[in-house]
Amino acid sequence: MKNLAIVLVSGGMDSCVTTAIAKQTFEVAFLHLNYGQRTESREFRAFHNIADYYDVGKRLIVNIDYLKQIGGSSLTDSSIKIPRRSLSNQTPAEIPSSYVPFRNTHIIAIAVSWAEVIGAEKIFIGAVEEDSSGYPDCRKSYYEAYNKLIEVGTKPETHIEIVTPVIDMKKSEIVRKGIELEAPLHLTWSCYGNSDLACGECDSCLLRLRGFREAGVEDPIGYVRPDG
Amino acid sequence: MKNLAIVLVSGGMDSCVTTAIAKQTFEVAFLHLNYGQRTESREFRAFHNIADYYDVGKRLIVNIDYLKQIGGSSLTDSSIKIPRRSLSNQTPAEIPSSYVPFRNTHIIAIAVSWAEVIGAEKIFIGAVEEDSSGYPDCRKSYYEAYNKLIEVGTKPETHIEIVTPVIDMKKSEIVRKGIELEAPLHLTWSCYGNSDLACGECDSCLLRLRGFREAGVEDPIGYVRPDG
Repeated sequence: MKNLAIVLVSGGMDSCVTTAIAKQTFEVAFLHLNYGQRTESREFRAFHNIADYYDVGKRLIVNIDYLKQIGGSSLTDSSIKIPRRSLSNQTPAEIPSSYVPFRNTHIIAIAVSWAEVIGAEKIFIGAVEEDSSGYPDCRKSYYEAYNKLIEVGTKPETHIEIVTPVIDMKKSEIVRKGIELEAPLHLTWSCYGNSDLACGECDSCLLRLRGFREAGVEDPIGYVRPDG
Repeated sequence: MKNLAIVLVSGGMDSCVTTAIAKQTFEVAFLHLNYGQRTESREFRAFHNIADYYDVGKRLIVNIDYLKQIGGSSLTDSSIKIPRRSLSNQTPAEIPSSYVPFRNTHIIAIAVSWAEVIGAEKIFIGAVEEDSSGYPDCRKSYYEAYNKLIEVGTKPETHIEIVTPVIDMKKSEIVRKGIELEAPLHLTWSCYGNSDLACGECDSCLLRLRGFREAGVEDPIGYVRPDG
């Protein structure tokens, strides 16, 4: 029998491909977070579609919409504008307003607590550093520091570790890896703005579209503005 | 004007004395967590009483009762017995069942997110290592690791740091420090079992009672069994 791993599945492309990678070695349990993000219900649907595709029984959905109480991000605070940039200006010098301060720390803490209870030994997360949105909590150094925290902050007999298999990949490599492993990219959702047709304009859509273009593959989901 | 610090105030003695210490240098904002613990409403009342005593305007109460979904602790899972020990066996060799796996990581993550938004530079927490209940997330090494995580996981322009002023103190020293700084110990609540008169039997009551006894001071709150 395979050992158990938790995969953080937002419903986006990176977590979907991360799942496909985790599945090669582990039995997987899926964790999804609702935190009052604008496209919450659309991401939730993508999560269950991907879980169904992989026939995942253990699913935990946790509501952390207290992040709204804290504020500070355009993803959870409707008074802050979602950033839209042209494709010619893809790599942001500053942290975008869609950044939820320290968000991944909350999410991974939930995963670690759950891992202690269900006996999972790995936590897979589809964080991307190279080609990322510039969030501080998507860097390799952040996950290295988190693994040290887990080591000292959990029971001595547990050995839980965060694994970030796509962190060094470009979006185009993630697309190619997903196709190679038959990940259900058609079921994923990345857009921060819309819930029916992806906007094609937000950071997340632009990064995704560029990834597919560079991979020479057509994105299977629908867009309002497919060319950005 | 004083700089701003967040204090994690459970309503217990340690966080109350930690507040008194923080107040010497900082303007304070109070963070309290409800997580479905058995004595939630009693702790909540103690929190507000202490906040009123110190005239604290900025109060954030966050509900993380999703910890109940995860389970694994007698504090949030009523099917697990609360440990009761005799006074002669105070220092546990094993982690007790009241341990909520990785709980402090969740709580501090909330404090860090809030600190980024309100511009606080310190997070005070009344963790105690020497005389503690044996939780892995109450050790100095844990907070050192967490400070590294904060350094890499937050915006470069922020410098948020966890401060643990009572971590090396024995309970009796905490009692004495509280009295020295006129901390409102009579408003605090430590019992894990009861909400009217403290049980005097749970881990938390026993540690507290021993602290007062060793300090040669009478505990100002009421007990069912004042001698343990």
